[in-house]
Amino acid sequence: MILVNGIQQSYIQIADRGFQYGDGLFETIEIHNGQPVFMERHLARLTTGCHRLHIPCPDLAQLNAEAQALCRHSTRAVLKIIVTRGAGGRGYRQPESLQPTRVLSLHPYPDYPDSYSEQGITARFCTTPLGLNPVLAGIKHLNRLEQVLARAEWTDPAIQEGIMLDVNAQVIEGTMTNLFYVKEGVIYTSSLTHAGVAGIMRSIIIEFSIELDLKVFEHTFSKVRLLAADEVFVCNAIIGIWPVKQIETKSFSVGPVTQRIQKRLVQFKKRGA
Amino acid sequence: MILVNGIQQSYIQIADRGFQYGDGLFETIEIHNGQPVFMERHLARLTTGCHRLHIPCPDLAQLNAEAQALCRHSTRAVLKIIVTRGAGGRGYRQPESLQPTRVLSLHPYPDYPDSYSEQGITARFCTTPLGLNPVLAGIKHLNRLEQVLARAEWTDPAIQEGIMLDVNAQVIEGTMTNLFYVKEGVIYTSSLTHAGVAGIMRSIIIEFSIELDLKVFEHTFSKVRLLAADEVFVCNAIIGIWPVKQIETKSFSVGPVTQRIQKRLVQFKKRGA
Repeated sequence: MILVNGIQQSYIQIADRGFQYGDGLFETIEIHNGQPVFMERHLARLTTGCHRLHIPCPDLAQLNAEAQALCRHSTRAVLKIIVTRGAGGRGYRQPESLQPTRVLSLHPYPDYPDSYSEQGITARFCTTPLGLNPVLAGIKHLNRLEQVLARAEWTDPAIQEGIMLDVNAQVIEGTMTNLFYVKEGVIYTSSLTHAGVAGIMRSIIIEFSIELDLKVFEHTFSKVRLLAADEVFVCNAIIGIWPVKQIETKSFSVGPVTQRIQKRLVQFKKRGA
Repeated sequence: MILVNGIQQSYIQIADRGFQYGDGLFETIEIHNGQPVFMERHLARLTTGCHRLHIPCPDLAQLNAEAQALCRHSTRAVLKIIVTRGAGGRGYRQPESLQPTRVLSLHPYPDYPDSYSEQGITARFCTTPLGLNPVLAGIKHLNRLEQVLARAEWTDPAIQEGIMLDVNAQVIEGTMTNLFYVKEGVIYTSSLTHAGVAGIMRSIIIEFSIELDLKVFEHTFSKVRLLAADEVFVCNAIIGIWPVKQIETKSFSVGPVTQRIQKRLVQFKKRGA
């Protein structure tokens, strides 16, 4: 089921700037027992994204009401919200008055086996690089060709995620996840000032780490540094946290720091997100 | 009027990957006396783009026939062709069998005054940078947020184009044009190995320059180098060639090299493109 500006339909105008230029944003939200999980955080990120792209932010109360209506009867699902600058103009220049388009669509929850979060996943390095652009870095915008090309690099079902480097060969994130590693008890994740998406689960993990008195740093690091880690894990709002048990030929164990954060996430969700 | 996979409609499926991820390509084509201008070149670039993004190329004879049918009665117009990977999949991974979507839309020819090509235009430098990514450089793909943000930087109607630099502060192109400059009789344009769109008019101008025994080089250059030029001009398939008479506080005259190439383009089009 799909709602476009509150009306049930599965089509969008061709003149919509989301289609013409990828001129918009999205959020991918877990639905659990009829409720969007971490909804406030998703709406806050959407607001920040609108602000950065100068898209008038849609009415959040209305968006929230539409999300609730759509998800009410779903035990477990994925809600995708797309907000675009609206329909109009041929050419990059935007017409003066434009109504943003909001699209809410409900999708089945992907059936990942429990082993992914318990025993970990296998990852590879992608050759498609992430470009660097501070103006777009961190934003969950609709320009996603880099991720599409990276995800098309492998079809082997034994590999669950691809790790993307930027054009300077620094590790940024997975195709659909943010990435963390642990070295001597300290947690590290990529700085997202020039590339990457600032994930909701990433920010939650950073908060948990601080709460748990673990040191956590954002920095710039290479493949070599990553492969020398004690623990590696990836995360997003749908999968939660997946330990990485293997990157190409290098094996990792599911370590104590990863497990502590996973446990904290489970508690946090139970307490009611 | 719009044709989607040969059928007249103004909507596209929300599941189309063009809308979800900007997962596709486009061409913007001049229509003159019912005929697409430089159509073979546009179709060739589209083919190259499909190849680079691993999108199965649509049947070019069919695409051409649809374009002809759509444009037959237009004296002057703009034809936009969008080709996407098709509709399907939530997530970056593409389903195994996907039918590319083709969208052909006809638009009024923009009413630029003749003074733009005769006396030249005024340009500014944009602050929105172009990211660097060799995997996407040169391709006329649908991920166009950088251009949208750059074009939103000014509203002054006295400024006709914005010049974009890459993240290393090297000059790449205009928001909707490619850029050339002339210094001591030699023609220079930006190398597009890491950013930018390889324009049809750009390639025609390079061919003309060689034909006219003018030296032409692709290279990497800064603002300072550009501002020290004898002549500057921008181009695309719709506007042809516009001399640049001013960039911020620096003035340029419409020089002899620019005029020779403009004249050659007019001849070439008359002879029958």
